[in-house]
Amino acid sequence: MTIEPATIDPARLQPMANAIRALSMDAVQAANSGHPGMPMGMADVATVLLDRHMKFDPARPDWADRDRFVLSAGHGSMLIYSLLNLSGYARPTMEEIANFRQLGSPCAGHPENFLLDGVECTTGPLGQGLAMAVGMAMAERHLNAKFGDELVNHRTWVVAGDGCLMEGINHEAIGLAGHLKLGHLNVLWDDNAITIDGGTDMSTSEDICARYEATGWHVVRCDGHDFASIDAALEEAKADPRPSLVACKTIIGKGAPNKQGTSATHGAPLGPEEISAARDVLGWDAGPFTVPADIEANWRAVGAKGAEASAAWDARLAASAHKDAFEAQMVGPSAGADAALQDYIRGLAAEPKKVATRKASEMALGPLTEKLPQLIGGSADLTGSNNTKTPSTTPFMADDYSGRYVYYGIREFGMAAAMNGMALHGGVTPYGGTFLIFSDYCRNAIRLSALQQVGAIYVMTHDSIGLGEDGPTHQPIEQVMSLRLIPNLLTFRPCDTIETAECWALAIKSTETPSVLALTRQGLPQLRGEGDEAWTGADNRCAKGGYRLQSAKAARKVVLVASGSEVALAADCAAALEEQGIGTDVVSMPCTELFDTQDAAYKADLLPSHALIVSIEAGVTQGWERYTGLSGLNIGIDRFGASAPADQLFAKFGLTPEAIVPQILNKLSN
Amino acid sequence: MTIEPATIDPARLQPMANAIRALSMDAVQAANSGHPGMPMGMADVATVLLDRHMKFDPARPDWADRDRFVLSAGHGSMLIYSLLNLSGYARPTMEEIANFRQLGSPCAGHPENFLLDGVECTTGPLGQGLAMAVGMAMAERHLNAKFGDELVNHRTWVVAGDGCLMEGINHEAIGLAGHLKLGHLNVLWDDNAITIDGGTDMSTSEDICARYEATGWHVVRCDGHDFASIDAALEEAKADPRPSLVACKTIIGKGAPNKQGTSATHGAPLGPEEISAARDVLGWDAGPFTVPADIEANWRAVGAKGAEASAAWDARLAASAHKDAFEAQMVGPSAGADAALQDYIRGLAAEPKKVATRKASEMALGPLTEKLPQLIGGSADLTGSNNTKTPSTTPFMADDYSGRYVYYGIREFGMAAAMNGMALHGGVTPYGGTFLIFSDYCRNAIRLSALQQVGAIYVMTHDSIGLGEDGPTHQPIEQVMSLRLIPNLLTFRPCDTIETAECWALAIKSTETPSVLALTRQGLPQLRGEGDEAWTGADNRCAKGGYRLQSAKAARKVVLVASGSEVALAADCAAALEEQGIGTDVVSMPCTELFDTQDAAYKADLLPSHALIVSIEAGVTQGWERYTGLSGLNIGIDRFGASAPADQLFAKFGLTPEAIVPQILNKLSN
Repeated sequence: MTIEPATIDPARLQPMANAIRALSMDAVQAANSGHPGMPMGMADVATVLLDRHMKFDPARPDWADRDRFVLSAGHGSMLIYSLLNLSGYARPTMEEIANFRQLGSPCAGHPENFLLDGVECTTGPLGQGLAMAVGMAMAERHLNAKFGDELVNHRTWVVAGDGCLMEGINHEAIGLAGHLKLGHLNVLWDDNAITIDGGTDMSTSEDICARYEATGWHVVRCDGHDFASIDAALEEAKADPRPSLVACKTIIGKGAPNKQGTSATHGAPLGPEEISAARDVLGWDAGPFTVPADIEANWRAVGAKGAEASAAWDARLAASAHKDAFEAQMVGPSAGADAALQDYIRGLAAEPKKVATRKASEMALGPLTEKLPQLIGGSADLTGSNNTKTPSTTPFMADDYSGRYVYYGIREFGMAAAMNGMALHGGVTPYGGTFLIFSDYCRNAIRLSALQQVGAIYVMTHDSIGLGEDGPTHQPIEQVMSLRLIPNLLTFRPCDTIETAECWALAIKSTETPSVLALTRQGLPQLRGEGDEAWTGADNRCAKGGYRLQSAKAARKVVLVASGSEVALAADCAAALEEQGIGTDVVSMPCTELFDTQDAAYKADLLPSHALIVSIEAGVTQGWERYTGLSGLNIGIDRFGASAPADQLFAKFGLTPEAIVPQILNKLSN
Repeated sequence: MTIEPATIDPARLQPMANAIRALSMDAVQAANSGHPGMPMGMADVATVLLDRHMKFDPARPDWADRDRFVLSAGHGSMLIYSLLNLSGYARPTMEEIANFRQLGSPCAGHPENFLLDGVECTTGPLGQGLAMAVGMAMAERHLNAKFGDELVNHRTWVVAGDGCLMEGINHEAIGLAGHLKLGHLNVLWDDNAITIDGGTDMSTSEDICARYEATGWHVVRCDGHDFASIDAALEEAKADPRPSLVACKTIIGKGAPNKQGTSATHGAPLGPEEISAARDVLGWDAGPFTVPADIEANWRAVGAKGAEASAAWDARLAASAHKDAFEAQMVGPSAGADAALQDYIRGLAAEPKKVATRKASEMALGPLTEKLPQLIGGSADLTGSNNTKTPSTTPFMADDYSGRYVYYGIREFGMAAAMNGMALHGGVTPYGGTFLIFSDYCRNAIRLSALQQVGAIYVMTHDSIGLGEDGPTHQPIEQVMSLRLIPNLLTFRPCDTIETAECWALAIKSTETPSVLALTRQGLPQLRGEGDEAWTGADNRCAKGGYRLQSAKAARKVVLVASGSEVALAADCAAALEEQGIGTDVVSMPCTELFDTQDAAYKADLLPSHALIVSIEAGVTQGWERYTGLSGLNIGIDRFGASAPADQLFAKFGLTPEAIVPQILNKLSN
């Protein structure tokens, strides 16, 4: 449905825009830190957007068919706080705005999705907001393809600055959006030609509009301080079937008479004198954090318009044949993960398979993608290597958005950010693949998955020197441990088919914590199955992060703790030690983060202080001392890899029983 | 000087190009892994390039004025190995080529600069080769501005594939190059429209030539299998004052009759049957790793031409008034680092300063940049925040390449890669700034600094929650420890003005290991000075990575180990403990990597097993167990930060004596 537009009345709109300016400059001044320039520059554009184009209902920030608003230039956070408050969201309150950037205020320095409804994603790391918006627009088109215009038909609006457009991820994001013809994605570029260091001409000579056009985008320009010009541009953007860049020519810090148009307004308070002068220029008599009643009423009226649209949507949903399926889609796949895998895991137990864990991942994804329609997979141009595609996941293409497999292209960072956007949009659970080494390329997006508390799943294969001949540029050494250091992220490194399936189930059930699955290129024996000590059928043994895979036969003197491909190696070492009468446990540790959350008794049982604890992992050793202590032994690789067949590399780097067992014997004899 | 071109004679050139094809398909087949498609597709282009355009002397791979050749599409490594061997470099030998991708062969899966002369940089992580080439071209123009055409006047040639162009870093790299008008940079794009997943049309719809033009580049197209067309395009590229993209329309795997033009040739051996068919098509009768004598002679003649040019350059250098200065420039700044800082450090000792370490870094950079002309600084649009600019470093601009300060724009990854390129070019030592959190954006380039063994210096400020109000997106938590995990990288986190200067000296002297300086936004007291226990004048106490800053007054029971801004906190905690009669050492640990290389006695003296060892750092605790053991205590932050003034955050996260001392007392009493 179309929202009835009000007429363009500058006399009404200008004071509304100036309310944003006043709140922004006052809040930054009160905090004595922040960025007034962007919200003051984009106030007019944002006012027209909300007044005449954006579909939202402040009373229902979780309305599934709302337009999404992404402030990619997150440092201009006072823009979104102002908009939320003025248009009638319950929060932030004016008191919370007055406490901008203070402990406990939801008005953080950069917008945080977990602090405020209406903040669709956490922004600040430049370029990622726009890239997440691409994912939101993808999710919207996918759900639209499944459920039709009646239930899913909304836009994603982005406010982006020069920084967002200069970052590399911008190229990846707009390349993907242009290729996928995401016509419901509209980017409002705050074209103020100013960065922190000064004019953009200090560091770029690019024709941004031409670049967007070269990438399949529609481009329209407007005067960002002329309401009619803005409105016409937004109309044109909406009408075009391609994603649109609306180049809004603005003056940074507009309204601050002496500082506007300069980098002085970018990242510092204007100061009392300039604020006073700005009040004169803007005709703003009200004191700080006060909005005159008539202006506030006009803003509230803008927000109130959304109630009718959301009620109409409710009625359509209630009457829809898709109602149950839509609601199930939005609830997500987590409840079905275990059941989807049950038969498959039983089959593995009965008939063990020696395959690479990347292959085991594909095998688990078979039933998962078949039974869980919310899963949307993909890969950054490594589909056959990441083993991420299944028969159930047909391509997601510009001419068929119902597909569930995204060919992301060679765009790791863009993929990860798009996955965040999809997860934040809701209704889909994204997984995406690349080589583990390229977690470095998308690391900050993985961090934003964790910070934003979304359950994105990263399928990262070729997880060690085990990838062999490609050599040190492609061999992860520090990546697994580095990922473990990111708060609120689960790093899984399963050792065989069964663990891989269990880790997949845990990842899907982990809806507020993202997961990385680190998987091998090389084949690994299946270590669990019916009759084995560690086989417990329905139990997901990986759920505790680490568990005893094998118990010592002789009196326990040694505990070998390993992950992934080194668990089988640990079992071989244990066998050699037992032959010498040295009782040795093997602990499989697919997820240290989950193990860290177990109680002290469980940990002490697995890693008793009287035993020699030995960690074995084909990566850096630092970090493993948490489990081995200073009297333990850490077997790993603390240098870069080399190019050669994998088995030769494991020998070269001392990851063989022949190299490890003597070190353990030596340690025991000291 | 211009190299005399031979005439374009396909009868001579085609067999030369086919030699590349034969070696490439045979080597990949022998290794049973690798990428034959690219070298076979680009063989004709590469042959024309070396035959008629590139300035190089195989006998002198370290000739300072040689053209640089960068194989950005590093997976096509057999292209460069073939070229080096055929044109007469001492290595790789044919035997080494036959051992492609085997242990010990310098012909690694991807080209490694530390394994072979003539490999200017390590490539494989897509997009970074081209971005490093930008840095090489920058270094060339800078040295040209200082020493003139007679001594420095060479080109940087890049072979790049679709992957290199799709990666985000490509946008950053070409934006910088276009802005800086690096006319000596020429990119040969292997336009074969194939990626690993299939046709490029599966994931991109971009008009690449239009994008390059929008970014300030000259673009010329050629038929990559027509020698005259290639030659004309390269001539045009050289003539244009802008950086050039030469779009070479090629067929991937050209010469393999059944597989060429498909992704089947991209990353797998062709197989014996297809290789046999290719031999027929190419008219290549010679067996594997055999090049007919006439073809080899033609190739050797191409290489031999460079001797004259390099000898002429020698003569110009010998006669040049710039000779001494040029040679000193190329030797690098490391020998002068200590002397440059001597007076400054003495002054600090006499007159302590309480400043942020980012400010202390600027203070140290004053004398360093004044006295060491090889240093080239810059920042990714945070000059005033990173404090990276000094009076000696004027802007490096398209109209003045003599400047030594680069406004990199909002391009962290592009900056880091360009820094690698500059360092690899030689003659300049780059340092560049951004916020520490954005080490995530350029992490793989930092890794490539380490892998390539170059002394790039990363100035990374705002290194903890101490940055305050910007909040969790901008507050490093896991970054410092994550960087410590990268092999061959020194992560410095100095605690005051003197340590900052010492760490700068160590970083500059570390010519084969890159450095990160993690610096505070907030002010820190100076902890060392004349008369203090730890003051030793000329000694660089940070050189051992960690040292005893304060000795216990009472009998030593506790050792506090801290870095950066937490060293002063540790000193406050020690004072509180000493008041209770608990002898407490304070160990400052600015660089764990250097500490790890000390002998056991030094380590045991600092961190004795009988004392309670307590680590204090405003970041993740995992990794510190290496120094504290399981019986120690790890004080840190294992969650994301928050937005608030810094002092309130330190209190919130328990980084105060009031929060820490009771934990220590509790631990001692257990």
